[in-house]
Amino acid sequence: MRQEDVVSGRRTTIAVVGDASVPEGDRREAVARELGRRIVDAGWVLVTGGHGGVMEAAGRGARESERWTPGVSVALLPGHDPSAANAYVDIAISTGLDVARNSLVAHADAVVAVGGGAGTLSEIALAWQLKRLVIALEGAGWAGRLAGEPLDGRARYPEIPDDCVRAARDAEHAASLLAHWLPRYGGVHEGIPRPTDT
Amino acid sequence: MRQEDVVSGRRTTIAVVGDASVPEGDRREAVARELGRRIVDAGWVLVTGGHGGVMEAAGRGARESERWTPGVSVALLPGHDPSAANAYVDIAISTGLDVARNSLVAHADAVVAVGGGAGTLSEIALAWQLKRLVIALEGAGWAGRLAGEPLDGRARYPEIPDDCVRAARDAEHAASLLAHWLPRYGGVHEGIPRPTDT
Amino acid sequence: MRQEDVVSGRRTTIAVVGDASVPEGDRREAVARELGRRIVDAGWVLVTGGHGGVMEAAGRGARESERWTPGVSVALLPGHDPSAANAYVDIAISTGLDVARNSLVAHADAVVAVGGGAGTLSEIALAWQLKRLVIALEGAGWAGRLAGEPLDGRARYPEIPDDCVRAARDAEHAASLLAHWLPRYGGVHEGIPRPTDT
Amino acid sequence: MRQEDVVSGRRTTIAVVGDASVPEGDRREAVARELGRRIVDAGWVLVTGGHGGVMEAAGRGARESERWTPGVSVALLPGHDPSAANAYVDIAISTGLDVARNSLVAHADAVVAVGGGAGTLSEIALAWQLKRLVIALEGAGWAGRLAGEPLDGRARYPEIPDDCVRAARDAEHAASLLAHWLPRYGGVHEGIPRPTDT
Repeated sequence: MRQEDVVSGRRTTIAVVGDASVPEGDRREAVARELGRRIVDAGWVLVTGGHGGVMEAAGRGARESERWTPGVSVALLPGHDPSAANAYVDIAISTGLDVARNSLVAHADAVVAVGGGAGTLSEIALAWQLKRLVIALEGAGWAGRLAGEPLDGRARYPEIPDDCVRAARDAEHAASLLAHWLPRYGGVHEGIPRPTDT
Repeated sequence: MRQEDVVSGRRTTIAVVGDASVPEGDRREAVARELGRRIVDAGWVLVTGGHGGVMEAAGRGARESERWTPGVSVALLPGHDPSAANAYVDIAISTGLDVARNSLVAHADAVVAVGGGAGTLSEIALAWQLKRLVIALEGAGWAGRLAGEPLDGRARYPEIPDDCVRAARDAEHAASLLAHWLPRYGGVHEGIPRPTDT
Repeated sequence: MRQEDVVSGRRTTIAVVGDASVPEGDRREAVARELGRRIVDAGWVLVTGGHGGVMEAAGRGARESERWTPGVSVALLPGHDPSAANAYVDIAISTGLDVARNSLVAHADAVVAVGGGAGTLSEIALAWQLKRLVIALEGAGWAGRLAGEPLDGRARYPEIPDDCVRAARDAEHAASLLAHWLPRYGGVHEGIPRPTDT
Repeated sequence: MRQEDVVSGRRTTIAVVGDASVPEGDRREAVARELGRRIVDAGWVLVTGGHGGVMEAAGRGARESERWTPGVSVALLPGHDPSAANAYVDIAISTGLDVARNSLVAHADAVVAVGGGAGTLSEIALAWQLKRLVIALEGAGWAGRLAGEPLDGRARYPEIPDDCVRAARDAEHAASLLAHWLPRYGGVHEGIPRPTDT
C-alpha cells in the first residue's frame, strides 16, 4: 500500500444504552434490535456496555445486518474479564473501571438510549457534558423521560439553538436522526473548565 | 503509640455536588455554605469537585466551622493541576480523569446535591448505582427535580422500602437527614452484575 | 437467527505498545508493522493507543493483512477526540482518561511491547498486575530491558513456573509466542486484594 | 471570615508507594514509617493506596507525628468500600477503578517509592509521565532498581538536566530531597500529545 493510498478508516461509533434486563417480548428489545441492525446497515460501529437486555438486543440486531463484518460490535465492559460479554459482541474491551466505564460509553460519536435506569441516566448525562449527540427513545425509563429536553442551560452548540436530547419515536426515526444530526454535532469536549473564582 | 491503642481514624466523607457557577446572592450559595459548615461541625469530611459555585461555597462553609482542621475539605479535580482547586480546598487530589472523576465524587459515603446541571446529574446517578445515600435540596436544578424520587426500580436496600433520593428543605434538614440515614446506608456496591443471558 | 445458532464472536485482542515516535527506518517500525500484519493474519484484533510511532506502524501492518476487515484495528485514545487517531485505526475509542487509559490497553488478552518509554513501562506493569500474557521484543527501550524477566515475585500462574515477560527475537517469534501461550494465560484478575492487617 | 483573609489552604501531597506486604521487621517497614512521620512533620499530606505493608507503615508513622491532625493521611483505594483502608487512614477515598487508581496515586505532588513490585512500578512510570517528582529508596524492589535513573529520554524539565528518579539512602534523605526538589518540580502534565503523523 502506498502512502498516498492511505485513507482514514475511522468509523463512526454509535453507543446504544439502556436496561440490562428487559422482560421477554418487551418493546425495548425489538427497538434495540432494529437499532443495532440499522446502525450497521449505515456503516457505523455499534458500541454497548456488553451486557444483557437492550445491549444484547442491539448486538443481535447488528449481527443480522447484511453489512455485518466481524468487528462492528464493540463492548466496553465494567469488569476485567472479556468473556463476560454477551454472545453478540465481536470485540470486548474489558476496562476494570466498574461504573466509571459509563464515561467511556458516553464518548461514542453519538449515544442512543432505550429505556434505562440510573446507569443509562449517568451515560446520558456524561454524553451531554461531552457535547455528544444524544438521542432518546420515547416511552419507558430515563430515555422516555428525557426525550426532547435539554439537560441543562449550557450552550453546547450556539449554532443549534434547539439543542436537546433528541426524541425518537422508533428505531427507524432514531436512525434518521443520527444520519441528519451526526454531521452537525462534531464538537469536541475541551475538558472541564477551571474554577470560577467568586 | 502501642498497637492496642490504634483506633481506625477513617472519617465519614460527604460529597456536596452542584452548579459550578451560581449568580451572586443565589440561595444555592447560602445553602451550600451552611451545608459545608454543618458537615464539618458533625465531624465529617467534605468532598467536592474543587471548582466554583456550590463547590466553593461548601468549602467556604467548611472553613467557617469551629471544628475545622486542615484536611477536612478534599477536592477531586478533573484535571492534572492541583492548584486549580478553589481557595477553600485543604487537600486537592488531581485525577486527570476529566468527567470520569464524577464517579469518584459519587463514591463518598453520602452525596448531597444542590441545584446542578448534567455533571451533577451524572454524580447523582452514579451514587445511586453505588448504593450511596443521596440527598437532594428542593428547589433549583436536577437536585430539585429528583428530590424524593427513586432513580429506578432496583431494590438497593430491601430493608428500606422507601429508599429514594432524600428530599431536604434546607441545609439544616440535609444535615439531620445525613445523621439519621448514614448508619442505615452502609451497603457496598458489589460491582456491576454479569450479563443476563437470554 | 435461531438461539442455538448463536456463536460467541468475541475476538482475541492483542495490544501492541511502544514508542509514540521512532526515527524513520528504525527497526522498531519494521517490527511493529510486521507484528500488526501477523496479528490480523492470525484472526486477532489489534489494540493500540492510537498514536504515532510503534502504534501507527502496527496499524499500517494490520491493514496490509489479507485478512483485514474494517474493525480489526482498535485504538484506545487518551483524549476526547476520536479524530486524533492515526490514519490506520478502524475503530477509535476516545476515553478522556489521559494516562489512565494505559490501564485499558493493558486489559487486552495479551500485550506485546516494542521499545518504549515510561508510558510503555506503565502498560507492561499494569498488564502484569492483570495477569495478562506480556511479550517484549528484545532490543531497545523498556521492552528490551524487561524481556525474559518476571516483574515481581507474585505467583501469577502457579502452573507456569517460568512465568515472565516473554522475550521475542522478532515479529515472527512474537506471533508464535502468542499462539503458543495465549491458551495458557486465560486467568482473570480478581481485583486488588484487601489490606493485610498487621 | 472576610474575603481578604482567605488563604489557599491547599497542602502539598506526598504519595508513599511500595509493597502491600513486607515481612515483619523488614527494613522497608521502618523506612516507610519514618517517612510517614517526616512527611507530616513537614506539614505535608500523606497519600497512599490504603492497603498493608509499606502503605500501612507510612500511615502509622504519619499518626506518630506531633503535627498529626485528623485528615493528613489520605488513601486512594482500588475498590468500592472505604472501610477496606488500613487502620491508619484518616480519609479513605474509594475509587472503584481497581489498578487504574494507580494513576491517581501518581498525581500526588511527589511520589516516594519503597521497595515495590509491578503495582509500584506502574505508579513510578505514571508519575514520570505526569512530570511529578519521583524519589526511590535504594535497596529492595523496583524502587531500588530505578533509584538514580531517568525512565526515558524525554526532557521533562529542560532546566533540570539531571532529572531522574531521585535516589534516597534512607527516610531522612528522602525527606530532605522532597524539601529541596519540590519547589523545582511544579510542572503540570499537559495531556498526552497528539499523534505524530508520518
